[in-house]
Amino acid sequence: MDYFSGYISALVGQLSKLPGIGNKTAQRLAFHIMSMPKEQAHELADAIRDARENVRYCKTCCTLTDAEYCPVCSNPERDASTIMVVETARDLAAYEKTGRYSGVYHVLQGAISPMLGIGPDDIRLKELMQRLQGDVKEVIIATNSSLEGETTAMYLSKLIKPTGIKVTRIASGVPVGGDLEYIDEVTLLRALEGRTEL
Amino acid sequence: MDYFSGYISALVGQLSKLPGIGNKTAQRLAFHIMSMPKEQAHELADAIRDARENVRYCKTCCTLTDAEYCPVCSNPERDASTIMVVETARDLAAYEKTGRYSGVYHVLQGAISPMLGIGPDDIRLKELMQRLQGDVKEVIIATNSSLEGETTAMYLSKLIKPTGIKVTRIASGVPVGGDLEYIDEVTLLRALEGRTEL
Repeated sequence: MDYFSGYISALVGQLSKLPGIGNKTAQRLAFHIMSMPKEQAHELADAIRDARENVRYCKTCCTLTDAEYCPVCSNPERDASTIMVVETARDLAAYEKTGRYSGVYHVLQGAISPMLGIGPDDIRLKELMQRLQGDVKEVIIATNSSLEGETTAMYLSKLIKPTGIKVTRIASGVPVGGDLEYIDEVTLLRALEGRTEL
Repeated sequence: MDYFSGYISALVGQLSKLPGIGNKTAQRLAFHIMSMPKEQAHELADAIRDARENVRYCKTCCTLTDAEYCPVCSNPERDASTIMVVETARDLAAYEKTGRYSGVYHVLQGAISPMLGIGPDDIRLKELMQRLQGDVKEVIIATNSSLEGETTAMYLSKLIKPTGIKVTRIASGVPVGGDLEYIDEVTLLRALEGRTEL
């Protein structure tokens, strides 16, 4: 790539390290960045630096935030007796976007994966168990519907049930608007198993 | 998006301004950046800043580079009497990647587009015409095969032909490995028109 200057190559190299950004896309982004007004390029660079510098984990739910407690945990109107357990801060964001969930969250920062060598001690499980010593009525397990997510859900339910706290799992089935024809068999079977009476 | 902290929202906002990066991708990238080692995040931020600060246009061919003259123009082994005219520095990079072109380039930084109000004075045409006063034997027009690219090619050829310099256009046709079945009709007709004897 010596037909590009050192700075361009460096930028393309850095950008192509990002997930889902291949060399072509990195090149396109790099040239876009170089044609940006200077202030805009600086804003982008600063946003990256600031976010990385200032973001930490919420002391209660372990999501990414820039204060000691995240907006959800510090909101007194949220029902702290219902905890939804998710894998990542992005999953939290997805449920928050619905605007219908009034409980709080716990972000595990991952899922148990024997394949990748991620055990129960590698995710924020200890922090969750500590929270359960407070006034908690229900734990909703909303880990992904993947092998790792299901493993984590099973593990969690076995761990929490003895405490007497209600443990639930979000429903698995056909997505709204989903065309049965294009949905995988496992999901179809799950939808059948989880059928409810009308 | 107040379920994210200010710094995260700011980063997602900045990233989603990039071309081809939607909100979802921006979120994914932002969370990736926040989970990077600090040095790596700083490297990315610095690369953006450095590239924007240090990159300028080559004094000869108008491509993006960090020196007064780009690596191609400052290479004495390149044949300066053959100039390939391209729209962008990325097009130059694409031809350089072939490793088979020994001439030099001229980067127009765009193409004539009456639709977008981009006229001949808005691209680096004047700079090209100045170069033609030197010892130039051939100008290869390698603008895109789009409406704008073709318009620019036509305009250029009309402008350059009177000077007596040979003007050529790169071939348009079926891409190598392309399946005729999936190729649009205009390209098929072009390929037919441009057929060569075997």
